[in-house]
Amino acid sequence: MPDAARDTAALIETWRARTDAKLQQALDTVADGEPRLHAAMGHAVLLGGKRMRPLLVHATAYAFGAPAGAADAAAAAVELVHAYSLVHDDLPAMDDDALRRGQPTVHVAFDEATAILAGDALQTLAFSLLAEAPLAAEIRLAMVATLARASGANGMCGGQALDMAATGDGSSIGVDALERLHAMKTGALLRAAVALGALAAGVDAGTRARLDDFADALGLAFQIRDDLLDIEGDSATLGKTAGKDVAQDKATFPALIGAEASRARLDALAMRMQDALVPFSETTAPLAALGRRAIERDY
Amino acid sequence: MPDAARDTAALIETWRARTDAKLQQALDTVADGEPRLHAAMGHAVLLGGKRMRPLLVHATAYAFGAPAGAADAAAAAVELVHAYSLVHDDLPAMDDDALRRGQPTVHVAFDEATAILAGDALQTLAFSLLAEAPLAAEIRLAMVATLARASGANGMCGGQALDMAATGDGSSIGVDALERLHAMKTGALLRAAVALGALAAGVDAGTRARLDDFADALGLAFQIRDDLLDIEGDSATLGKTAGKDVAQDKATFPALIGAEASRARLDALAMRMQDALVPFSETTAPLAALGRRAIERDY
Repeated sequence: MPDAARDTAALIETWRARTDAKLQQALDTVADGEPRLHAAMGHAVLLGGKRMRPLLVHATAYAFGAPAGAADAAAAAVELVHAYSLVHDDLPAMDDDALRRGQPTVHVAFDEATAILAGDALQTLAFSLLAEAPLAAEIRLAMVATLARASGANGMCGGQALDMAATGDGSSIGVDALERLHAMKTGALLRAAVALGALAAGVDAGTRARLDDFADALGLAFQIRDDLLDIEGDSATLGKTAGKDVAQDKATFPALIGAEASRARLDALAMRMQDALVPFSETTAPLAALGRRAIERDY
Repeated sequence: MPDAARDTAALIETWRARTDAKLQQALDTVADGEPRLHAAMGHAVLLGGKRMRPLLVHATAYAFGAPAGAADAAAAAVELVHAYSLVHDDLPAMDDDALRRGQPTVHVAFDEATAILAGDALQTLAFSLLAEAPLAAEIRLAMVATLARASGANGMCGGQALDMAATGDGSSIGVDALERLHAMKTGALLRAAVALGALAAGVDAGTRARLDDFADALGLAFQIRDDLLDIEGDSATLGKTAGKDVAQDKATFPALIGAEASRARLDALAMRMQDALVPFSETTAPLAALGRRAIERDY
């Protein structure tokens, strides 16, 4: 492995460890409630996952000179929102999934009521963390507003609702509608991760716009890769049930435009991500690496 | 009706109208997502309710000289959190209730998946509102932190988890445990409402402590009244199914200490609320009236 790649890998490992530590610390602040609820929250958050969103927060903050401490709360907060959405999406009334990250989903390991409440409380904890982060008040507020906008009815929740509406009738929507669905369901939170890192570093508006373009491409690429993995991956590597999209007749890129065209879209998005980062210094290397990971990942 | 009482009633009506307008405005900001999700959010929020929490925000802000505009966002935010918790608590996996405020609950009027997502998005909207309120940054942040602490795993969500754990085995917990359950499940958010009003008005620490004592008594009184109404009220007046606590063998005050002792507790709490407000001027009259309403209400 060349030096630069090794440095990037080492940085990413540092950020992953920081994220896990911060998540554990955040959970510790709400350990006085109901023990089973607290255990379910830990199950949802601490059993691994790619940590793509917190890594994006850290990589963006690092690229523009912010100390890692300035990104810790935002990195954990965006992962808490992601984790809560998985817990709720896995419920029987939604995607009805029993396996996640190679482990039983929260409603299987605990029960449905606990899973609903754990998701609720994880969302709350995300905003709590941001409000109490050791950052200037205006930055914290911008972070709360950014995360809320990305995850609410106009963002992640709205996207999941669009997804539910299309499920069972996956071929009825067009590519534009599918892109909008994914931009809301998955893209909004990935973009928020990059935006939170940019807020931690206090970048200018022009840089913010370029980063948002990078994040937009990454979000779409991430989802197309997800769709491809559902048909090409296996459950053991994925840590979740493969082939579910087809079984549930979900709207996916492979279903709408075919696997080959989906892979071509991925290549184009990889180029767009690369272009977006061109004006910046080599400190964006970890961010670029995460962009590639979104496209090349096996799980 | 004497003049003072009429003034109080008129103020409360004004605040109710302001709350409804602000809630509608907040929902309008997320109208671009999935139409069914948006309709479900409106169903949860706009079909009435006592509006006890927003009225407490306004009455507290008014008592200490804040303009109503300073309380609008907090009043709507605390009601959004309350509304989301009702949507989720009514789900089949939780309290399984079909009737709320005299209307079908959200999962009955729509479906379970939509109800889960609508609750999620209502919570997000609450924090969005606070983060973007026209108030000083430090006040907005304190509001976000206050609302998050009250509604998360150490507060409302934790209390609901304790309630679920005790349901079906209602006589197994003692009065102290029941008080803690209610302090978390219902009390925390009612206290947060008063605290949010105090933040809007910028009161000193001593005043804050007294107000918190008032709110603590109100929270417990509110819940004891709720327990009594479940055995003494009728579904039509309540707007929800009466007799459910007994049917589900829930832990309640009447079940644990009897109806008569429960009413005696209510009287004592009414005195405590009155005492807490003694040092303050007559502008606390609406707040005192809301305290009495918590105890005397029929629904």
